[in-house]
Amino acid sequence: MATDAFIAQVRASLGERAVITDPAAIEPWLTDWRGRVRGSASAIFEPRSTDEVATIVTIAAEHRVPMVPQGGNTGMVAGATPPGDGSAVILSLRRMNRIRAIDPAARVAVAEAGVILETLHDAVAENGLRFPLTIGSRGSCTIGGLASTNAGGTQVLKFGMMRALVAGVEAVLPDGAIHDGLTGLKKDNRGYSLDQLLIGAEGTLGVITAVALKLVPAVAERCVAWAGTDAPEKALGLLRFLEARTSAVEGFELVPGDSLDLVLRHIPGTRAPLSEAHPWHVLLEATSASAGSGLAADIESMLGEAMQDGLIADAVIASNESQADAFWKLRDSISEAERSEGPTLAHDISVAVDAMPGFILSAKSEVERAFPGAIASAFGHLGDGNVHFHVRAGERADFYERDGKAVTRFVDDLVTAAGGSISAEHGIGQLKRDELERLAPPGRIAALRAIKQALDPLGIMNPGKLVA
Amino acid sequence: MATDAFIAQVRASLGERAVITDPAAIEPWLTDWRGRVRGSASAIFEPRSTDEVATIVTIAAEHRVPMVPQGGNTGMVAGATPPGDGSAVILSLRRMNRIRAIDPAARVAVAEAGVILETLHDAVAENGLRFPLTIGSRGSCTIGGLASTNAGGTQVLKFGMMRALVAGVEAVLPDGAIHDGLTGLKKDNRGYSLDQLLIGAEGTLGVITAVALKLVPAVAERCVAWAGTDAPEKALGLLRFLEARTSAVEGFELVPGDSLDLVLRHIPGTRAPLSEAHPWHVLLEATSASAGSGLAADIESMLGEAMQDGLIADAVIASNESQADAFWKLRDSISEAERSEGPTLAHDISVAVDAMPGFILSAKSEVERAFPGAIASAFGHLGDGNVHFHVRAGERADFYERDGKAVTRFVDDLVTAAGGSISAEHGIGQLKRDELERLAPPGRIAALRAIKQALDPLGIMNPGKLVA
Repeated sequence: MATDAFIAQVRASLGERAVITDPAAIEPWLTDWRGRVRGSASAIFEPRSTDEVATIVTIAAEHRVPMVPQGGNTGMVAGATPPGDGSAVILSLRRMNRIRAIDPAARVAVAEAGVILETLHDAVAENGLRFPLTIGSRGSCTIGGLASTNAGGTQVLKFGMMRALVAGVEAVLPDGAIHDGLTGLKKDNRGYSLDQLLIGAEGTLGVITAVALKLVPAVAERCVAWAGTDAPEKALGLLRFLEARTSAVEGFELVPGDSLDLVLRHIPGTRAPLSEAHPWHVLLEATSASAGSGLAADIESMLGEAMQDGLIADAVIASNESQADAFWKLRDSISEAERSEGPTLAHDISVAVDAMPGFILSAKSEVERAFPGAIASAFGHLGDGNVHFHVRAGERADFYERDGKAVTRFVDDLVTAAGGSISAEHGIGQLKRDELERLAPPGRIAALRAIKQALDPLGIMNPGKLVA
Repeated sequence: MATDAFIAQVRASLGERAVITDPAAIEPWLTDWRGRVRGSASAIFEPRSTDEVATIVTIAAEHRVPMVPQGGNTGMVAGATPPGDGSAVILSLRRMNRIRAIDPAARVAVAEAGVILETLHDAVAENGLRFPLTIGSRGSCTIGGLASTNAGGTQVLKFGMMRALVAGVEAVLPDGAIHDGLTGLKKDNRGYSLDQLLIGAEGTLGVITAVALKLVPAVAERCVAWAGTDAPEKALGLLRFLEARTSAVEGFELVPGDSLDLVLRHIPGTRAPLSEAHPWHVLLEATSASAGSGLAADIESMLGEAMQDGLIADAVIASNESQADAFWKLRDSISEAERSEGPTLAHDISVAVDAMPGFILSAKSEVERAFPGAIASAFGHLGDGNVHFHVRAGERADFYERDGKAVTRFVDDLVTAAGGSISAEHGIGQLKRDELERLAPPGRIAALRAIKQALDPLGIMNPGKLVA
């Protein structure tokens, strides 16, 4: 077996500790985060340095054994789950977990791929700085995975996705060469940007081993508010209203009334922020890097004006940190609350920001007409033109089995017709590969395939992901 | 001749007006901006739409005739100059000069490749907005060229290079397929970013036909100051000092004392901003988007504090716009003033920002030791770790012919040894191709070649540029 020879040669080069073959130790890493896909692998490799990764990749190329890079295994599209046939091994970056440098003057940190996001948050906070990207899985997800998937999150509105926060990438390419993009150069025009190509490539073009990250000043003041409104269009109007007056807004989340109802019903200890019911809600967060900036007063006065303008019906500002966290918990509990009601199909989609309010309403009505009894709802990052468009079984039986694929195709068709993306922030992985191929322009698929074939002609990097 | 058949077929498809074959009309476009390289071409194609570009590229692929995309022809590395053997034609984007949209709410403009930068500046200014990238050739250079070369300029410190200001790219790929990255999506994780791959590819992977550009609020207040200091290290200290206190600084240029002397000697109407002579100078520009922000008073007080701290010896703030322009003219006239003294070899190089002060001094002394009689000086974007490292003939005769290549190799070796880049913002084009190949890690060259071969297997896109 090529795999056995590969494992033996890596052991000979790097020692026993670099390879795990105990099935019980491998087991937890064979299934994706959401438990949708189960793979198979006879070994997990655990390199501790970039050179060790290069050694492993070089040996893998010799034996033509594919590898699945894995960080925290928190992806949403099974992009870090090995194929079911056992033909690949897992290349875990979790032992590469050093923060190599934090440079407060340059506002840059260099973290190895296996550093957990929350660990990085804490480390830069000790230097009075902040890495602004955050997502629900911050206690498990890793820097390498965030870069490889170009992760999004709740602060994209102000700081952009991972791509905008990466200052450089170190990676091992499929031929074993080390790409060193951690030069610290702010300007470097020496040909195609391999850094940019590796960001969002989901490990199919190489293994990201370390990332230079852009930092921003720590938050000194935070203002979290909850507002009720009539329609998504008005929620967007509120965002534009605020954007014209301040650059402090960094989170702007849309929550439908029925999603809030589900949360209040199913999640213990939650309560509605406003006394009256509203068809739609907005959770917004504004921050300032300087204390005493009067942020809360400013936001309060803007919300008052927006109310007078008819953009919102009511609003409340969290009076302390625990109330702010309680507001966020309402937003973050939507998926969990939905699951209490039965099967849900989730779609991470985007359209142009201005088109999102109309899309939310028309897509809901079209899905519910096509699948009577099902309930569609959209929540999330309105300001980014990105919502999580969920379809719940409602009155329909055997929802996953009977309707699953058809509902997803239906939603993806609507998104594509609206000029949108079937993957806003989760990536393609295994789960969206067929839909990408079905719906992307043929020229784009051809270009992606050509790039994959060019950089990984042996097909050893994360097989079966993104492009076949 | 393949070229003749190609021309005839394009004429048949798009009409006479799409092709220029008059040698007198072609002549001005055969030589690069600095007059260093002269090429040859029997035709210039002038498409007026993306579809017309796609038609031309498709026909070119059939006939295997290479094309050299050209915008304002203001590049510094002969990247838009055709080969000397007449094997290629010029594909000029200058008739694709529509600003398709300016969206003040989303702060995005969509401009076709042939739009001149200054035209865009003016158009967005009418909407109370600003496109912050600017360079000396703004009256001639085009948006397509700026994106294709990932241009820099004087405001990179605050706004980044072109890559950071592009929201989306439309391009025709070498197989004639149209890549539409102008979707307006803020989040889109559908595989490798072709937008990012095309930015900085110098037209070797496809023809950029339009670009979505990020806009920022218009400048309401501007403060331009000139300071004298002892050493580059202190100039960098001043920058860090200011950065810790304000985010308003967007230009920070280093000017050596002898460069200022040359300007004062050769450029009519110039005068020194400060009464005393200083070994080094800093030109800095700070801006505010809100009027009455007290910007000038803030900068003045910071400069006073920096003087007390010993970072600078003297400073003056421009008292009006014409004085501000006069300060900038001193900086912008350095190259012209140097030319009055005789031959100059220019090197656009970068190292890490913190390493730049040391590099400037050591590289100057090493070059002058290796080439006695020559004079080395570095000026420019200190805050970006990017200076224009110029070597003047001084007392050396036949400088270009005898020393040209050796001096450049010497400088490039120093830069590479310091972990820097031999091209900070100008790109590779024809002029730096050999040096890139000589000095880049072999793995990087292999990856660039593989990408080029994958996307342009026929070699019809900008032959002889970037990678062979």
